Amino acid sequence: MNRIYLDNAATTPLDARVMEAMLPYLTTHFGNPSSIYSFGRETRLAVENARKTVAGIVKASPGEIFFTSGGTESDNMALVAAVEDLGCRHIITSAVEHHAVLHTVEHLQKKYSLTVSYVPITINGHIDLDQLALLVAGSSERVLVSLMHANNEIGNLLDIERVGAICQEHNAIFHSDTVQTLGHYRLDLSKKWIHFATGASHKFHGPKGVGLLYVSDSIAIRPMLHGGGQERNMRAGTENIYGIVGFAKALELADQQLEQDTAHILSLKLYMAEALQKRVPGVIFNGDWDGQSLYTVLNVSFPRNEKTEMLLMALDMQGICVSGGSACSSGADLGSHVIRALRPATGVPIRFSFSKYNTREQLDHVLRTLETLI
Amino acid sequence: MNRIYLDNAATTPLDARVMEAMLPYLTTHFGNPSSIYSFGRETRLAVENARKTVAGIVKASPGEIFFTSGGTESDNMALVAAVEDLGCRHIITSAVEHHAVLHTVEHLQKKYSLTVSYVPITINGHIDLDQLALLVAGSSERVLVSLMHANNEIGNLLDIERVGAICQEHNAIFHSDTVQTLGHYRLDLSKKWIHFATGASHKFHGPKGVGLLYVSDSIAIRPMLHGGGQERNMRAGTENIYGIVGFAKALELADQQLEQDTAHILSLKLYMAEALQKRVPGVIFNGDWDGQSLYTVLNVSFPRNEKTEMLLMALDMQGICVSGGSACSSGADLGSHVIRALRPATGVPIRFSFSKYNTREQLDHVLRTLETLI
Repeated sequence: MNRIYLDNAATTPLDARVMEAMLPYLTTHFGNPSSIYSFGRETRLAVENARKTVAGIVKASPGEIFFTSGGTESDNMALVAAVEDLGCRHIITSAVEHHAVLHTVEHLQKKYSLTVSYVPITINGHIDLDQLALLVAGSSERVLVSLMHANNEIGNLLDIERVGAICQEHNAIFHSDTVQTLGHYRLDLSKKWIHFATGASHKFHGPKGVGLLYVSDSIAIRPMLHGGGQERNMRAGTENIYGIVGFAKALELADQQLEQDTAHILSLKLYMAEALQKRVPGVIFNGDWDGQSLYTVLNVSFPRNEKTEMLLMALDMQGICVSGGSACSSGADLGSHVIRALRPATGVPIRFSFSKYNTREQLDHVLRTLETLI
Repeated sequence: MNRIYLDNAATTPLDARVMEAMLPYLTTHFGNPSSIYSFGRETRLAVENARKTVAGIVKASPGEIFFTSGGTESDNMALVAAVEDLGCRHIITSAVEHHAVLHTVEHLQKKYSLTVSYVPITINGHIDLDQLALLVAGSSERVLVSLMHANNEIGNLLDIERVGAICQEHNAIFHSDTVQTLGHYRLDLSKKWIHFATGASHKFHGPKGVGLLYVSDSIAIRPMLHGGGQERNMRAGTENIYGIVGFAKALELADQQLEQDTAHILSLKLYMAEALQKRVPGVIFNGDWDGQSLYTVLNVSFPRNEKTEMLLMALDMQGICVSGGSACSSGADLGSHVIRALRPATGVPIRFSFSKYNTREQLDHVLRTLETLI
């Protein structure tokens, strides 16, 4: 049975060219980048070249780019630093953030007795930016705003420039989890309306186990992990060289092919939406799916009945990989906190998320399977 | 020019069999282990099998094994948990620990106004265990003892069972950085005299970017990184599957070949020591090199003169990789904090560290080069 993988918001397959770029560092070029001999300097150079590549693509300076073990570590590091180093005592976030943000905020709230506000969500799943502006303006303490660039479950895109402007006006710190947009949209961080941005290369055909933290050079923070002087004393630990090299290569490829991949993937999303509307009665699309939304994600609620309640499992048995929400919370089996935040959960939500490797033929097969199953 | 790599305490080349075990997860088996479909369960199974393998080898239960991004993260996590979750207010450590411990202790000391004591070091580089016992017994607060199993620079081995007994007697928490011994010595954690142990697979021919934290099931701690429910809610973030699979495979291979690798590497160390004594006048071996010491490390002080001061660089130009101390601090160029702690720094210290891939012929070449250079 051929597998059809439509869960690219959870993770993506490694691009063969990324693997090729990583391979020398997995075999012959294994020197510790902190070593002073030339064999270590080779890998040091690879790490610094990766940093320059990434910085160039997001229009940051290399000094603003830090490599971590993943998006979660990056989110944790940003939030901890905003509270511990930048004096933020009021966190404004939303109920539809990734758990890497929500659980870290809850942890910090308890630990430091912080004030936490959750911006209301509009009917189509957007952050209510007018309410956000009021919340930020009305705060008597220094504010950290943490709002993701794109929601990983429903795909809604945030107007980060407007959020950045609101934050700037009130001297608030702005952290955005850009895990779902880095490598899929062009970020221009040179405008300085954002203090912290995060990424994970396994979301754009790079390796797992490596992440990005962008820290604007307008702020000064301290490390979360202490030890050796790696990452200019900001993130201790022997560098995951293959991961870092793979991260940069994956981002470079994504950037080079952005227009063509976007067009291809968007056409898949629209094709799927149109076909579902025609062929499956009663489907609802969650979020602002045909407006400000990721071209990679289509979140569909199927009418709840005996058959749709087992739909994920039934699709799995047909070799079709889709998810009910974020992978990071699916183990908990509590359903999606994002969908719960949106509306009374009547339907059975399924997230289809597409990549450059998907084809219309695959979607046709999935649609036929859905018709059979429902 | 053939490179001769004698810096295996900094990092080691990946064993080709480890790479082979990782390869499927770098290519076809890329599913997110938190996904509920079978393609995710495959990688979940790989992670849990890796955990079982590691647990079996160190005689722990799988529930005591957590995968992290490396030895540094593991050390940080253990120390933070001991202070924040286990109520330790007095840290007893030593001046010759790795910076992943020393700098984290300094950070925690400032943050929580902790008491920190440094156990004196004996003339041959050992922790003075009688002094340790007095310090632990004399503390009015709950104690965390953090002492590494083997020193990464001079190779001295700690009697961790005795330290564990001292800690047990006084209800102290015992953390040991076992980064230099895991995969090189058989650890038996079933005896429960240790609460936290750490490891990094790139020290025993596994991948970089993955680490181990052992947490005894006699204590309960909270996560340092918050987010998804990975690692049974103890370490959030999408799992670095290839890293984890590689970690377990590397440890398995190390364990299978432990006796023969130990014999081979020890014979190299002794051969090198004997030859250096014969052929380079005035050399001194640092630490308890022919006693309780890593068979992988030989730390040599050369008489200081114009030629030896440039020795690292001169050896590098001949394709010979050795280090002046720990890789993690060599970028700082302040010399070794370990050697400074031992004795007035007269000689020029060079650490030779050996692996199963080194040969006597390589050492002969290094010895000839040294004779020429000095």
